[in-house]
Amino acid sequence: MSVITKILKVPVLKNPVMICGLPGSGHVAKLSLDYLIQELKAELFAHLVSFSFPPQVNILSDGSVDILKSSMYYWENKDGENDLILYTGDAQPITPEAEYELSDKVTEIGKKIGVKTLFTLAAFIIGRFVDKPRVYGTATDQMALRELEKYDVILMNEGTITGMNGLLVGFAKLKDMRGICLLGETSGYILDPKSSYSVLQILTKMLKLNVDLSNLEKRAKETTAVIKGLQELQRRSEAQQKGTKEDLGYIS
Amino acid sequence: MSVITKILKVPVLKNPVMICGLPGSGHVAKLSLDYLIQELKAELFAHLVSFSFPPQVNILSDGSVDILKSSMYYWENKDGENDLILYTGDAQPITPEAEYELSDKVTEIGKKIGVKTLFTLAAFIIGRFVDKPRVYGTATDQMALRELEKYDVILMNEGTITGMNGLLVGFAKLKDMRGICLLGETSGYILDPKSSYSVLQILTKMLKLNVDLSNLEKRAKETTAVIKGLQELQRRSEAQQKGTKEDLGYIS
Amino acid sequence: MSVITKILKVPVLKNPVMICGLPGSGHVAKLSLDYLIQELKAELFAHLVSFSFPPQVNILSDGSVDILKSSMYYWENKDGENDLILYTGDAQPITPEAEYELSDKVTEIGKKIGVKTLFTLAAFIIGRFVDKPRVYGTATDQMALRELEKYDVILMNEGTITGMNGLLVGFAKLKDMRGICLLGETSGYILDPKSSYSVLQILTKMLKLNVDLSNLEKRAKETTAVIKGLQELQRRSEAQQKGTKEDLGYIS
Amino acid sequence: MSVITKILKVPVLKNPVMICGLPGSGHVAKLSLDYLIQELKAELFAHLVSFSFPPQVNILSDGSVDILKSSMYYWENKDGENDLILYTGDAQPITPEAEYELSDKVTEIGKKIGVKTLFTLAAFIIGRFVDKPRVYGTATDQMALRELEKYDVILMNEGTITGMNGLLVGFAKLKDMRGICLLGETSGYILDPKSSYSVLQILTKMLKLNVDLSNLEKRAKETTAVIKGLQELQRRSEAQQKGTKEDLGYIS
Repeated sequence: MSVITKILKVPVLKNPVMICGLPGSGHVAKLSLDYLIQELKAELFAHLVSFSFPPQVNILSDGSVDILKSSMYYWENKDGENDLILYTGDAQPITPEAEYELSDKVTEIGKKIGVKTLFTLAAFIIGRFVDKPRVYGTATDQMALRELEKYDVILMNEGTITGMNGLLVGFAKLKDMRGICLLGETSGYILDPKSSYSVLQILTKMLKLNVDLSNLEKRAKETTAVIKGLQELQRRSEAQQKGTKEDLGYIS
Repeated sequence: MSVITKILKVPVLKNPVMICGLPGSGHVAKLSLDYLIQELKAELFAHLVSFSFPPQVNILSDGSVDILKSSMYYWENKDGENDLILYTGDAQPITPEAEYELSDKVTEIGKKIGVKTLFTLAAFIIGRFVDKPRVYGTATDQMALRELEKYDVILMNEGTITGMNGLLVGFAKLKDMRGICLLGETSGYILDPKSSYSVLQILTKMLKLNVDLSNLEKRAKETTAVIKGLQELQRRSEAQQKGTKEDLGYIS
Repeated sequence: MSVITKILKVPVLKNPVMICGLPGSGHVAKLSLDYLIQELKAELFAHLVSFSFPPQVNILSDGSVDILKSSMYYWENKDGENDLILYTGDAQPITPEAEYELSDKVTEIGKKIGVKTLFTLAAFIIGRFVDKPRVYGTATDQMALRELEKYDVILMNEGTITGMNGLLVGFAKLKDMRGICLLGETSGYILDPKSSYSVLQILTKMLKLNVDLSNLEKRAKETTAVIKGLQELQRRSEAQQKGTKEDLGYIS
Repeated sequence: MSVITKILKVPVLKNPVMICGLPGSGHVAKLSLDYLIQELKAELFAHLVSFSFPPQVNILSDGSVDILKSSMYYWENKDGENDLILYTGDAQPITPEAEYELSDKVTEIGKKIGVKTLFTLAAFIIGRFVDKPRVYGTATDQMALRELEKYDVILMNEGTITGMNGLLVGFAKLKDMRGICLLGETSGYILDPKSSYSVLQILTKMLKLNVDLSNLEKRAKETTAVIKGLQELQRRSEAQQKGTKEDLGYIS
């Protein structure tokens, strides 16, 4: 178990807030992070490669090849209070221990750069399609929980959050940072930009970020069309089979 | 594999005895430790997080979220000879290697603080309900075994104790401390405060601790009622099914 | 997880290019490396033993016994621009993490000796026998991709390369070396010197190496005879079973 | 993965030869080592505990409890050329990586104390009972192989030796020591002191050790009686079942 950290540049940031989202159900978290990084034109400053990423390299569409990695970006917020650190990646480690290890490294880097608040985005799987995915939340302290309520985030009071989108919040607490997790409802069946859209609407309000979400909204609407198509297919299939249930599986 | 140790305070203690109990069958050990910590108002001084704990964070009932951890507490025994170190946790590591590693760290901390005797509490699974769970024991030296006999502990002469409640005693010996394990009989089916009560009755006598066990006794009696209900259910079910055997499973 | 590196000699080399090929499908890569090492009379200079190689030792045909290991050789190219480092081994590690770890060590050694370009050879499984295996390729930068096109290598634009023959190229990129992977088509059923021959034809042209490939060509032709035999057997078997499909399995 | 090494004493030895045998098939190796340690009254000087031993402690017959461990003993050979280091243990590690790690540590200690030749004892499974188990052998160099032939050891020329009794010989070679493995034929079904007896007859001759093997011979003869009983049982069972095959399983 090991992590290679390749720091391209050490940014000097103003009250940085860290936002993390790794691939998981519906890619809710990763889609959100990718969108933010693109819209904010955030700057890449570090790669982290876990030896427990899948043992393969990927061929990209331009014919070149690259190792799987996770990456950190920063964004200087000229008009607001908090600069941002954005963290996402190609994969989560395949062993539990390596999820702990990578979460430890990521929060260590954040802490060194001065992060006091760390957000993770995640998926809340509900097993069916919804028109307006709601956003659930939890945090490491009561003050943050009260803050979440102001933004109509539904507070959880039981359950677990598995994987790094959960562990990173736990490590934030262990290292005396505030941790907040926002979870968007998602079916669990498809890539879900609608859920990402719901999550980012709240996140951008909380952080007073002026980010144009219209491109994401467009993708969310396309998803609605896809879902309707899927549901129509399912209805027909059910009509034909009179009662035989069918799992839609994971369609991306 | 790795353990994060977060020391909040280094206690200075008088002839400290260490008592350990991690979650296992019937939660016999953990219930005992939780009870002692609460009744003695023992003070938290260290967290140990194994990277082989399950890769998740838990939402608590107050809506906040925390990482899984194990913790050490100390208690200053103003009237007696031995101060106490109490160790329990949310989980045991999920890999064998990490059980060894965490046991190594825990006994290392104990040794540094001056521990010469380490107790672990554990479950002795018997697969049926008993009214008065008996207490079995083993130890790393003959003198301790003779001491156990004085308190009517039944000595074992074969078998193994798996998991950290066993390993911690083995590590005590390896590090030239005395190790003693007290195992309470338990069915293996339910959370078993009755077994914890039996174990603590002996432990408190051995250490001349003045701890009020009445609240635990109350919980033990409630368990008796639960068991009677379960047994009644089982009797009826068996009557209906005439001979079909049914496993009660793990009911908590 | 650990690697023992035993350096027998540190070679001083002129613009060294590294060529790697570990055992994999059809042993395409390993056969190629073994052939180059033998034909060039390359000199052994390092052993790397991963603790995640299979836990066994092999009895050799002369009765002696040896641990599983991977090895590095060098070759001084008196007539050309680039000296060579050649890397192959008895096995790949059995855990993903150890594949990363060994790839990291191998590229670290290469980097220290001055390697700027690292080739890996690999298999491209197609599930059927072909007369003239084609060669696919990918690389870590566009310039290298354009170079590959000149030699009629078919560029890939999707998919993954698993195992160390992929990872080594990824690590090359992470460490700012150029990485190139050449993949020979192979059935996946048999040891395939024909595929190795195709790959080496291109590699030797790209590196302007004057290596006599006639012995490998001979083995390739023998393979053609073996395949014809297998196909004849299969035809008969299919004729008998009228439609029952049969897998040839892995025949070496 | 980790090993705790507890050195009780550093022996100063004369041309020490190391003999290793860990539990494996038929306990051929461990029985041999236990016998040598007892007969020679060898002195304990080190414990090695692998974190990949099974995660449990064992209750001994005297009621006390101990961690699983492997141990090193030394014996000063007053009449002969070579002092001995003897190594055996309660278990082999449960992961392949940890077998490598422990083999590495054991050979490292041997090397430091001055060992130039390392023997391992092992089992050669043949799946049936034999009256006089033969002894097979392999070694890391040709001179040692010629030596083995002098003692009527049957040389192997293919196959693998799995587990630490093989790996230790591989590590000996990697560290420039001579490694020799003696393998006693064994059925694989029962504890086999007969096989240990065959192996020790050769080992003691090779090392010119004056060890009384009569107690082991006695146990071997008792085993012959047990086997005859088993074979008689099997004959009857086969007679009853007319042709139904039955596996004797592992009977200790």
